[in-house]
Amino acid sequence: MPTTPSSPVGLHRVLEPAGVLPQAARRLDASPGLWPDEVRISIERLNLDAASYRQLEQAHDGDGAAVRDAVLAIIGERGKMQNPVTGSGGMLVGVVDEVGPESPLGLQPGDRVATLVSLTLTPLRITDGLSRWDGRGEQVPAQGHAILFARSIVAKLPEDLAPELSLAVMDVCGAPALTARVVQQYVDKNVKPVVSVIGGAGKSGSLSLAAARRAGAARTIGIVPVESEADRLGAAGLADVVALADARDPVALAAAVEQAGGPADITVVCVDVPGCEHGAVLSTAPGGTVIFFSMATSFSAAALGAEGLAADVTMLVGNGYVPGHAAYALDLLRSEKGLRELFERRLAAEVPPAGQD
Amino acid sequence: MPTTPSSPVGLHRVLEPAGVLPQAARRLDASPGLWPDEVRISIERLNLDAASYRQLEQAHDGDGAAVRDAVLAIIGERGKMQNPVTGSGGMLVGVVDEVGPESPLGLQPGDRVATLVSLTLTPLRITDGLSRWDGRGEQVPAQGHAILFARSIVAKLPEDLAPELSLAVMDVCGAPALTARVVQQYVDKNVKPVVSVIGGAGKSGSLSLAAARRAGAARTIGIVPVESEADRLGAAGLADVVALADARDPVALAAAVEQAGGPADITVVCVDVPGCEHGAVLSTAPGGTVIFFSMATSFSAAALGAEGLAADVTMLVGNGYVPGHAAYALDLLRSEKGLRELFERRLAAEVPPAGQD
Repeated sequence: MPTTPSSPVGLHRVLEPAGVLPQAARRLDASPGLWPDEVRISIERLNLDAASYRQLEQAHDGDGAAVRDAVLAIIGERGKMQNPVTGSGGMLVGVVDEVGPESPLGLQPGDRVATLVSLTLTPLRITDGLSRWDGRGEQVPAQGHAILFARSIVAKLPEDLAPELSLAVMDVCGAPALTARVVQQYVDKNVKPVVSVIGGAGKSGSLSLAAARRAGAARTIGIVPVESEADRLGAAGLADVVALADARDPVALAAAVEQAGGPADITVVCVDVPGCEHGAVLSTAPGGTVIFFSMATSFSAAALGAEGLAADVTMLVGNGYVPGHAAYALDLLRSEKGLRELFERRLAAEVPPAGQD
Repeated sequence: MPTTPSSPVGLHRVLEPAGVLPQAARRLDASPGLWPDEVRISIERLNLDAASYRQLEQAHDGDGAAVRDAVLAIIGERGKMQNPVTGSGGMLVGVVDEVGPESPLGLQPGDRVATLVSLTLTPLRITDGLSRWDGRGEQVPAQGHAILFARSIVAKLPEDLAPELSLAVMDVCGAPALTARVVQQYVDKNVKPVVSVIGGAGKSGSLSLAAARRAGAARTIGIVPVESEADRLGAAGLADVVALADARDPVALAAAVEQAGGPADITVVCVDVPGCEHGAVLSTAPGGTVIFFSMATSFSAAALGAEGLAADVTMLVGNGYVPGHAAYALDLLRSEKGLRELFERRLAAEVPPAGQD
């Protein structure tokens, strides 16, 4: 057992630069020995962040072997999975291997868990060269270990759902939880909001649509980029209206939302392509709220865009952590047949559709 | 008069790429002829965004002539002032030259005005080669013209304040207005919040401190990076407690805020250096709010940082537009002697202190 004291947020695992939090670190110490408040997980599978996977796929022209080598190189160099271009990571599923005597996480060796903190701050070591992964798709079978700190967030995998399904839901479970909270704030003021979800057929998007309806939205609008997605979302029955629009085209997006019963009181951005900030603002009613969940969001584009459009809208950075978020999202999945089918179909297809997470 | 129809948000001035909003455009048409709903301003002075100026200054090793040439090149190429690295612009002051017959802005030729929309979306042409500017400092005396669209935001300069002073206040007037609104939301729920302003001695920071106190904060904390700023902010009397901390060091920042009476219910980030996201989150109480006004904010660092710290905080993208923001900020300046002195001293010094706007 190491002799230096540990920190609940993992400062003791930061190799460089000194004194920063693990997410900001260039390099983490991923060695397997535990501090007293840590937990070691034996990895079964990584789930790469959609924006990160897409960037790697595009940078390597869809060459799966090259994508795999790139992921291995990142983890080897940094001791964590953090795409240097997108800054994002993902999550993992595994089995608890060892629990430090002072860990507050309530885990036992043998528990099957998913991490709900980002891979960008989770010490990680891969031991099988990712040999079971062809580099195609976000789900990466892997062997190796990961370290959880005292303040890490982790969820035991439910026994009634396939692990891949739970993992896919938990990866984006902050989105429906925060959407529900914001809708509830409107409902508490006796306003039933119109909610538009950009990228409504994706993982975070479809969950957010279901959450908005359950929380009391007057109308839910799902925006998708292509006809096949519209058909799929329409069949799932999660949105009151499904509309086609390129979210990067503010003028077209605003027109589509307007025609679908907008402008929106709440716009939820779940589409992982750059350049959706202005459209989100332009299609939101004065006094409304935009929640950005896409990691492709540009802070300055959002701030300056709203100013430039003289738009009095509240813009939220989508926080991936809301207490109870995993249980809430899994409950949505269990109770919404259409939602579950969307997820299962996506998992069966393995490769995510372009432009959505 | 041109024959193609105009758009209230300026789509008709976008040269490339076609169909995007002016802020997203690579190039705008800055020609002086007006569409019926436009206004032409004769420029007196540009006020560059602090992050943009600092980037240019650093890129050219403080060589004023090179900074001037760089600004001229950007405006010449793009037809607007938008720093390609920071994505930010600034604002301008000038005199109304011509008003299109259908302009809704209520201006008359001869009115002295400041634009409250960003220079990143304002068609701009410089005619004097910026010959009266030495490239040092954000305030740029200039000749040329700018175009306002129907939905632009513009304020007549008050006669009781020096134009430079009004301009400096209006440039950041979204920050105190949004801070006041968020504090008010807490007060409406019978909570008097502790408000911490990171970069409290800067322009947006000092205004935000004054706004927080006036809106009913229980305690205001001003965080500054160096002793000289602490002395200045202390003398201004705008914060209940002034504390020294490097905002890029989350652990140190959280400790400083804690010691000053924190954690904060509301943290306002006004310091224009990258890497303050984690510190802001770590020094904010569970259930609290972080408002990011710095254009150096990284969206993914904020989103993943909060998740990684298991922090249930609401994170707002600081919107530069809140109705009535200019009048509110100017009123704060008039009524707070210490605030006005801070601004006047800053203007007299011309060059902004490192790390603050």
